[in-house]
Amino acid sequence: MTRFSFSISATDGVARTGAITMRRGDIRTPAFMPVGTAATVKAMRPEEVRAAGADIILGNTYHLMLRPGAERVARLGGLHQFMGWERPILTDSGGYQVMSLSELTKVTEEGVSFASHLDGTRHMLSPERSIEVQRLLGSDIIMQFDQLVPTTSMREAQREAMERSIRWARRSREEFDRGGEHAERAAIFGIQQGALDREMRQASAEGLIDVGFDGYAVGGLAVGEGQEAMLGCLDFAIDMLPGDKPRYLMGVGKPDDIVEAVVRGIDMFDCVLPTRSGRTGQAFTADGPINMRNARFAEDQEPIEPGCPCPACVTFSRAYVHHLVRSGEILGAMLMTQHNLCFYQRLMKALREAIGVGQLGSFAASFLERYRSRARTIAEPVSG
Amino acid sequence: MTRFSFSISATDGVARTGAITMRRGDIRTPAFMPVGTAATVKAMRPEEVRAAGADIILGNTYHLMLRPGAERVARLGGLHQFMGWERPILTDSGGYQVMSLSELTKVTEEGVSFASHLDGTRHMLSPERSIEVQRLLGSDIIMQFDQLVPTTSMREAQREAMERSIRWARRSREEFDRGGEHAERAAIFGIQQGALDREMRQASAEGLIDVGFDGYAVGGLAVGEGQEAMLGCLDFAIDMLPGDKPRYLMGVGKPDDIVEAVVRGIDMFDCVLPTRSGRTGQAFTADGPINMRNARFAEDQEPIEPGCPCPACVTFSRAYVHHLVRSGEILGAMLMTQHNLCFYQRLMKALREAIGVGQLGSFAASFLERYRSRARTIAEPVSG
Repeated sequence: MTRFSFSISATDGVARTGAITMRRGDIRTPAFMPVGTAATVKAMRPEEVRAAGADIILGNTYHLMLRPGAERVARLGGLHQFMGWERPILTDSGGYQVMSLSELTKVTEEGVSFASHLDGTRHMLSPERSIEVQRLLGSDIIMQFDQLVPTTSMREAQREAMERSIRWARRSREEFDRGGEHAERAAIFGIQQGALDREMRQASAEGLIDVGFDGYAVGGLAVGEGQEAMLGCLDFAIDMLPGDKPRYLMGVGKPDDIVEAVVRGIDMFDCVLPTRSGRTGQAFTADGPINMRNARFAEDQEPIEPGCPCPACVTFSRAYVHHLVRSGEILGAMLMTQHNLCFYQRLMKALREAIGVGQLGSFAASFLERYRSRARTIAEPVSG
Repeated sequence: MTRFSFSISATDGVARTGAITMRRGDIRTPAFMPVGTAATVKAMRPEEVRAAGADIILGNTYHLMLRPGAERVARLGGLHQFMGWERPILTDSGGYQVMSLSELTKVTEEGVSFASHLDGTRHMLSPERSIEVQRLLGSDIIMQFDQLVPTTSMREAQREAMERSIRWARRSREEFDRGGEHAERAAIFGIQQGALDREMRQASAEGLIDVGFDGYAVGGLAVGEGQEAMLGCLDFAIDMLPGDKPRYLMGVGKPDDIVEAVVRGIDMFDCVLPTRSGRTGQAFTADGPINMRNARFAEDQEPIEPGCPCPACVTFSRAYVHHLVRSGEILGAMLMTQHNLCFYQRLMKALREAIGVGQLGSFAASFLERYRSRARTIAEPVSG
């Protein structure tokens, strides 16, 4: 049986569509991975995540190692069995969360020592421990452990972190290869760093390619630099990564970010936006995001997004969802999250189809024009 | 088409099983009505409430008149369409919540003036307004507006409230009968008051019967008097109500309360316990309630209740639900609520079947022995 293969069925410019084949199932690309931080895509049942169109979800190493604990998940049969999701799972390495969430963090060549944000207990994440945790979880796509520094860091600090990340990439790869049965069915991705700097991005890519990975992520973006800067970086960074391997843009993003990145050759995405927005009252539509708390929806009999085939839109009105969201009802979060995940997956499907028929340029232009026009004409408060 | 009929298919002692037939569907009795306070059975989709076995749900007049507002619900097509529940809905009269939740309450013969607990705006509930609100919601079973006083009130205050409730029962009935098309498809129940006093319960029942209702509720119980006192009151109060009409014990209760009340001739129940407990980590099982937050479940691979056919038990382990509840995840509330509602509905089905075959006594004894034995032997903290 195939461990990991990536086949491209059609290209359009530098964009491509195809599928990653793994033992737990195929991942159609370009793919959006809903985030299941704590072994649950928040407010969704696994079958609803699948019905929305997801082929793969993302789990967070940092959160899961702290609660319920990687060894515990392993004793319970692995993350898939634990949370009732049979298809592929990608786990991040914990490198991002350990810098953004934990406290009293100390970085050495060995790894990162930190205090849990939950209870202050001290833990260590190294390339070896990160891969071990991901293996204990039973992850299908493992991410290398990397070092992140704030985008405001001096160039020298950026360079040191990028170079250390290459050394950690090699240690991650070596630990992955010691995984025995797990290594025979899972895959491992490297993560390109280098902030917005072309020369550092090139050095990072060359270092990772020298190690050799099943796929390559573009890391260190979508951390506050703005869409224009991010796309400008993608314009040169993507081409540095092997064209025959999946390219994954971590932590992205808004629907228009995704369209722009697919046009530039990205194959995989993850982001908390559709789920988090679902809990704060923001719904995504082809005409841009809308805030369901807005009083103008109080007696609106239309669904969240007219024409959307998702169960939330088929059954319920904006008036009802508005009432639920305003009242802080759990069902409001359930319905909004369901719609948002369906919106994202419908967008990915439309992108795949547009590439398949060689119409990505016109699809993207049309989508972006409509999506952004509302944002330009209506100054509506939205929460991120 | 039948507006409202109650047919008894079997009796066992004073207990009975049968069905209420209404235009929106049959209600198998004894029936448990999940509470949908704010136009949602919290954390559940309507189809999940139905799949759990519910024939009817309860809506709260007080909450709905304040948010989203009865006139607004009417403009949106009524409560059934608003919340996506096509089967019967019973609405309470607001009499209980207006005394327990609102502020600056002033009671006169006309009705109750109060300030909303949401925003302090002043509102009035009278028999006429309560029935009007319930009609605007499109309720199938309307409850009369009654006056509640604390159980610690002096006997004279209890008597005055009981007697006023009879006068309000007549005004409620008259307003209901002025309802035109609504009165042709809906039903109205009276509410017996009189605290724990036999003579007052008798006077209340006689007053209500003189007005004439489709069904009769036992009110003013399950308000802190304890199970023994409640059952002692039921022992004489139920027989005062017409045997050919449904008898509804409002706000009850724990599974063992329900079994004891069915044995005494009650046909209908409502209670927030299965839903509220589902959000606080308490699961109901045939062996008594368990607190899923308890550390002993952290690696327990059994379902919440072994043998339970509900989707939560079929798919997920106690270990997973424990993790979700401890992590404050919405999915934890969803799964726990689903199990609890399924448990309650399975209990009602078992009670109906036991009455049908004349085995209620042995079923009840067996259920209560098993349900209570665990509570006796394990001092487990449960939240109510």
